[in-house]
Amino acid sequence: MYVRRGIHVHHLLRDSWPFLIGVSLWSGIVVYLNEILELRFLSIPIVPVTTIGIAVSLYLGFKSTSAYSRWWEARQVWGAIITGSRDWGNSVLNLIYADGRKLDPAVRQDLIRRHIAWVHALAFQLRARSRLKAAGATYAFGRRLIFQDADYHQTPESYRRLLSAEEIAEVEATGNIATHLLRRQGDRLRELAEQGFLDSYRHVAMMAMITALFDGQGKCERIKNTPFPRQVANFGLMFTWIFIILLPLAFVDSFEAETALRSMSEEASLDYLLLMIPFTLLISWVFHIMERVSDSTEDPFEGGVADVPISALARTIEIELLEMMGAGDVPDPMQPVDGVLY
Amino acid sequence: MYVRRGIHVHHLLRDSWPFLIGVSLWSGIVVYLNEILELRFLSIPIVPVTTIGIAVSLYLGFKSTSAYSRWWEARQVWGAIITGSRDWGNSVLNLIYADGRKLDPAVRQDLIRRHIAWVHALAFQLRARSRLKAAGATYAFGRRLIFQDADYHQTPESYRRLLSAEEIAEVEATGNIATHLLRRQGDRLRELAEQGFLDSYRHVAMMAMITALFDGQGKCERIKNTPFPRQVANFGLMFTWIFIILLPLAFVDSFEAETALRSMSEEASLDYLLLMIPFTLLISWVFHIMERVSDSTEDPFEGGVADVPISALARTIEIELLEMMGAGDVPDPMQPVDGVLY
Amino acid sequence: MYVRRGIHVHHLLRDSWPFLIGVSLWSGIVVYLNEILELRFLSIPIVPVTTIGIAVSLYLGFKSTSAYSRWWEARQVWGAIITGSRDWGNSVLNLIYADGRKLDPAVRQDLIRRHIAWVHALAFQLRARSRLKAAGATYAFGRRLIFQDADYHQTPESYRRLLSAEEIAEVEATGNIATHLLRRQGDRLRELAEQGFLDSYRHVAMMAMITALFDGQGKCERIKNTPFPRQVANFGLMFTWIFIILLPLAFVDSFEAETALRSMSEEASLDYLLLMIPFTLLISWVFHIMERVSDSTEDPFEGGVADVPISALARTIEIELLEMMGAGDVPDPMQPVDGVLY
Amino acid sequence: MYVRRGIHVHHLLRDSWPFLIGVSLWSGIVVYLNEILELRFLSIPIVPVTTIGIAVSLYLGFKSTSAYSRWWEARQVWGAIITGSRDWGNSVLNLIYADGRKLDPAVRQDLIRRHIAWVHALAFQLRARSRLKAAGATYAFGRRLIFQDADYHQTPESYRRLLSAEEIAEVEATGNIATHLLRRQGDRLRELAEQGFLDSYRHVAMMAMITALFDGQGKCERIKNTPFPRQVANFGLMFTWIFIILLPLAFVDSFEAETALRSMSEEASLDYLLLMIPFTLLISWVFHIMERVSDSTEDPFEGGVADVPISALARTIEIELLEMMGAGDVPDPMQPVDGVLY
Amino acid sequence: MYVRRGIHVHHLLRDSWPFLIGVSLWSGIVVYLNEILELRFLSIPIVPVTTIGIAVSLYLGFKSTSAYSRWWEARQVWGAIITGSRDWGNSVLNLIYADGRKLDPAVRQDLIRRHIAWVHALAFQLRARSRLKAAGATYAFGRRLIFQDADYHQTPESYRRLLSAEEIAEVEATGNIATHLLRRQGDRLRELAEQGFLDSYRHVAMMAMITALFDGQGKCERIKNTPFPRQVANFGLMFTWIFIILLPLAFVDSFEAETALRSMSEEASLDYLLLMIPFTLLISWVFHIMERVSDSTEDPFEGGVADVPISALARTIEIELLEMMGAGDVPDPMQPVDGVLY
Repeated sequence: MYVRRGIHVHHLLRDSWPFLIGVSLWSGIVVYLNEILELRFLSIPIVPVTTIGIAVSLYLGFKSTSAYSRWWEARQVWGAIITGSRDWGNSVLNLIYADGRKLDPAVRQDLIRRHIAWVHALAFQLRARSRLKAAGATYAFGRRLIFQDADYHQTPESYRRLLSAEEIAEVEATGNIATHLLRRQGDRLRELAEQGFLDSYRHVAMMAMITALFDGQGKCERIKNTPFPRQVANFGLMFTWIFIILLPLAFVDSFEAETALRSMSEEASLDYLLLMIPFTLLISWVFHIMERVSDSTEDPFEGGVADVPISALARTIEIELLEMMGAGDVPDPMQPVDGVLY
Repeated sequence: MYVRRGIHVHHLLRDSWPFLIGVSLWSGIVVYLNEILELRFLSIPIVPVTTIGIAVSLYLGFKSTSAYSRWWEARQVWGAIITGSRDWGNSVLNLIYADGRKLDPAVRQDLIRRHIAWVHALAFQLRARSRLKAAGATYAFGRRLIFQDADYHQTPESYRRLLSAEEIAEVEATGNIATHLLRRQGDRLRELAEQGFLDSYRHVAMMAMITALFDGQGKCERIKNTPFPRQVANFGLMFTWIFIILLPLAFVDSFEAETALRSMSEEASLDYLLLMIPFTLLISWVFHIMERVSDSTEDPFEGGVADVPISALARTIEIELLEMMGAGDVPDPMQPVDGVLY
Repeated sequence: MYVRRGIHVHHLLRDSWPFLIGVSLWSGIVVYLNEILELRFLSIPIVPVTTIGIAVSLYLGFKSTSAYSRWWEARQVWGAIITGSRDWGNSVLNLIYADGRKLDPAVRQDLIRRHIAWVHALAFQLRARSRLKAAGATYAFGRRLIFQDADYHQTPESYRRLLSAEEIAEVEATGNIATHLLRRQGDRLRELAEQGFLDSYRHVAMMAMITALFDGQGKCERIKNTPFPRQVANFGLMFTWIFIILLPLAFVDSFEAETALRSMSEEASLDYLLLMIPFTLLISWVFHIMERVSDSTEDPFEGGVADVPISALARTIEIELLEMMGAGDVPDPMQPVDGVLY
Repeated sequence: MYVRRGIHVHHLLRDSWPFLIGVSLWSGIVVYLNEILELRFLSIPIVPVTTIGIAVSLYLGFKSTSAYSRWWEARQVWGAIITGSRDWGNSVLNLIYADGRKLDPAVRQDLIRRHIAWVHALAFQLRARSRLKAAGATYAFGRRLIFQDADYHQTPESYRRLLSAEEIAEVEATGNIATHLLRRQGDRLRELAEQGFLDSYRHVAMMAMITALFDGQGKCERIKNTPFPRQVANFGLMFTWIFIILLPLAFVDSFEAETALRSMSEEASLDYLLLMIPFTLLISWVFHIMERVSDSTEDPFEGGVADVPISALARTIEIELLEMMGAGDVPDPMQPVDGVLY
Repeated sequence: MYVRRGIHVHHLLRDSWPFLIGVSLWSGIVVYLNEILELRFLSIPIVPVTTIGIAVSLYLGFKSTSAYSRWWEARQVWGAIITGSRDWGNSVLNLIYADGRKLDPAVRQDLIRRHIAWVHALAFQLRARSRLKAAGATYAFGRRLIFQDADYHQTPESYRRLLSAEEIAEVEATGNIATHLLRRQGDRLRELAEQGFLDSYRHVAMMAMITALFDGQGKCERIKNTPFPRQVANFGLMFTWIFIILLPLAFVDSFEAETALRSMSEEASLDYLLLMIPFTLLISWVFHIMERVSDSTEDPFEGGVADVPISALARTIEIELLEMMGAGDVPDPMQPVDGVLY
């Protein structure tokens, strides 16, 4: 997630230059074919192109809205995970008790540490696979691969460091590590209930917290595993390109009409038509970027620049829960890298 | 659900070629009648057609948004079913107990296996009927009939394999198998309560989980049985076709105006007008596809390419619950067929 | 609710023919006044009319979205009523018990039968009054009066058949039958609590189900009694008509410009202008239908063709609850009439 | 809330006539300056004005959608208050009991009467202040001051009639009467719990109902006290007026172009240009009304014609709760005044 | 939050004058270069600029809707915090009790005072940092720095005044003061449970209230710490500026076409073209303001004029809770400053 208010120009150019060169070339070719080779076929009336421009804008508006909703839902789910975590910490400390007996503090610490492990395991499961190609530098719409370490949830060490070897072995034998960590929390609660530290009522209340965490996990997995409908996304892209390709064909026609209207000399006409190139560039870049923006918010867990910063949020949870149980080894909050928080 | 990021060109062409040929013919006829037979009646000013184009885009925007919401809600409901299933598994293992007595493990297994049967019965009830014609190959917007088996929820064997003959007979005698499987879970819980393995409090908590599952089931049935309002869907289609049919009539007028403006020779004019055909094709294809895309997301449980992949999700649930109860017969996750997960 | 995928042409024509004739006449008059009487006043530039066309499309887009949301919410509420009913059935059978004593099965049946009565009373209260004029045949946007019977919730017999004479007298003395049926369920539960068949905990759980049913009832009443804001609906209609009336005035101008451009003879010009009539018809029909579609989904409980099929849904609930309690007199599901489910 | 399906023409004209006269004058002046004084400066090309027209429509679309959502949310909240009230009545009658002891019926009546007082106090707090100027007649978008009485929640008598003098004195000493009425309900429940008529479990369940009522109250206060963002509302109005003021300047240009095209005589030209006035009127009225409609739904608790009818809803609650407790003094439902329910 | 219905003209001008001067200059330069230096290159056909204008309007529509949703969600969250606070007060007074023993009133006061401290600590954490530059006067879209005191949550004194020195030291040693204040409430509840003033059931009910408060806090932090996606915001701004810069280039072309059409003299032409400047100004100002409006609602906790007025809401909570516990030191509600409530 970009935290700088403005986007760096060089981050943007790293993404946009092939587009800018490509469209300039295409516009240049259209002018050349029209004016030098006089292939007047290659110019079309502008009104239909305008219509398709509006239809494409509407389609991109639909795509942007839907993609943004996915992104924001992802952030909301992680907000709920933070709330669930604070709740878990508060309840582990204050809802488990029995008349006249004292609970071993190690039991509470174990429940909290396993919870932190669950948060990191979930982040790891979301981040480990990515459809984006990793790059060595920050692109406005790309993924930067400088983080081959556990902090950024690229390796299983992210959660392993908080678990015993026995527990690692057990959960890694299953298809979904996070699910089985939560189930193990359920097992611990049952033991506490059987030992009398939880009555039925408080037991159910704490099981309901696990349900809330299962809910957060399931929602993240839904967003990760269900890509934005490919038909919507792909045709959005195709329509944008159809518009961009038709644009110079229509502009050449409009600009030519201008030259006729003003009865320019042939040379002046050519100069004037070349002027078409930057304008085409500007307008098609606007559509291109609209498409890229919606594409970039569509998948919020790919480790890209526009990601929901789940590594930073997982760290926040770890800090708060460690502080709650008065632990001494509290890490620092994560910092943005090159203006981007991951 | 398409899981490949791009849609295969041949999948797309299987759907689009009749459209492309039809529109080419219609455009050709319009040019022919105008230019060769000189039926100048068949050309109309472009501005009104543009207006209707914008109105149709807006209407398709409304239709796409609503259809996508149905699709995404369907996916959310199945996400909630996954959460409910994990919750059920965790609770069956950890909320049913009594002081000093041990519960027969077969009772827990029975509750979990019946739950898996419920998931498959629900998927079967959603998938067995389809409004889409099945085809032997993958179409971009079609339904592929290679799955005449239980895995894809085409046959009742999907859920029967998990139930006893007696139970199959009982639930199949009713109008809604899934409902009665859940009611039977309720019967089992009552027995456990009467035997003292559930106190009132834990009993109510587990009944609330059944409510959550009834809720998921009811939402799926709502989406399956309440088609997107036919008036909205049908007129969306009609409007698109009205626009597509008017398009060449307006383009022929615009292109003709161009030939007049440039005082082309008659032959050049005809050549230029023929150029109109690909442009008409491109623009009307954009509108045609917009309509198809919204149509394809409107019904998420038809077994089509754009479906919510409920067979794969049901399999995921089966895997996780079997792993939770430590069963040995855990199946593999389902794989995409031809880039599509069902 | 239309269940056929396509709308019958004759259903549509029954609605549209007065519109089609009216607009044809108006277009014809405009051509006549302009061309024969040469009242050239009656032609205006097309661009402002286009602008208003776009503004009206946007307004209709807003109206359609809001109206559709009402319709879909109505369907969701009935989905929740189905879930609440299954839940009620399951809980009546499984949550009411006492150690060592057996509950008279008639008590359970009474609770379930009164629930079915509530569902039908609610449907009756929603359907009995309608703002739509009833007709003898199916119109695409109308209301068909063939159902003067209890099955379609046109008469109080819908719910009376399930209640004792004493109970009918009591609830019909009040202003809202459904409310007082639920309150009576509350009375029964209190008696069961006092008899010890419900402890405090299960009593509260079952009262919460009544709350959920009150919630569903209140939401239906909200949608029924709060019409879509009349200012939004009425001005939407007025704007559409302003656009439709201006349309031929602008078209006549555009078509005339064409005749000038092509220097047609006077006779050819007149022929060409007459061609304007079908195009005006087509485009204004699109706007007219957009308005009708949004109008038709705005009120989902009027007994019209586009209604949420609450009679069929109430029947579904009756079937499932009767099957749950093992009753013998289970009715059949309701069937569509002329492609429409009510 | 308008309950008639159509809006009275005279209600509408009361609002619109200053606008209609103003715009007619402005259009007339523009024609006069252009044609008689020949100040040709005062005519501008129409395309940019069209663009701004579309931008303004989109902005009004956004404003309408948001304003309508506020209105509908307000209605939903009052729906929830109705549900909460039925729930309260049912629970007061059926959840408060103790083994072997009978509760004084006056206690139940006291709890229900105070609830009705709360509903009216809330309505009074929402309605007493209004930003709208009261008028003696019904305007399509105005506020009618014929109701200087308690029934319409214009005076504190609305709720006082249901409370004892001591209670009135206590709650009116605080900043928020409704809040403290609910707190007093909490006090009563505590007394009942201490007397043993509520066990912990039923006590918490009834406290949760008070929470739901606090929630409804807080949501109403949110909508009342947080005006629709003034920047959005004000600039929407400004943009509409900028468009309306530019409109005749652009139309005069378009109509002039027509007169040139048709080479009309000077006199005919002037006549033709005067024709511009009604068209300008019609189109600018459409934009004006779009703005008024969104403005009218923006604040649902001002006592205006477009209000959520909270007086009628409060009356409904009073009727149903009195009927529930078998009271004899049940009032009649409120009736629309001049087609409007308040 | 602006509470005046209209925005002061001088507040608006403080923001807009650099824009107005800048665009006037740019338009003037374009006219100068075109007309005096005859650099006819600098004029482009208007239709493509119109297209981009519509695309930009749509994008700004998307941006406005999303930004407004953030703002409204922020207000909803604070509404929920108000409800949670009333609930907390009511429950502290009425849910904590034990048979035959009286609770020290100081314990209740301590629980309520700490809650008020939490509200202020949360407001302080949201308001203390701001991305907006503070100014000495009210700007329509700016932040006014006259409030360097605790009332406006600019200093930690906001919450410190309600806590003991020991408690301040403890919570300020952690990374999140609000979180740890709530955890301390949890500690107090456990003590009360251990002393028997809360049974398990009421204990869990009160812990659930803390969960609701954690939820409110987490949602505020989500909105504060997750800026509106920078790619969406930044490109929205860029697109607006591209449109504004292209506008005079297209207008100069349109106005020139007019002068040609009317065959004006050269001098009249120049005069006419200068007229272009105010129109350009008006139209580009509309787009500029649309962008500013969406920008201003995007971040609701920056202490700006468009903020959700959390200082005033926190004060409301303080007043109501103090009144609930009968305290004597109740402060007055906060008043708007210069028409703005903070």
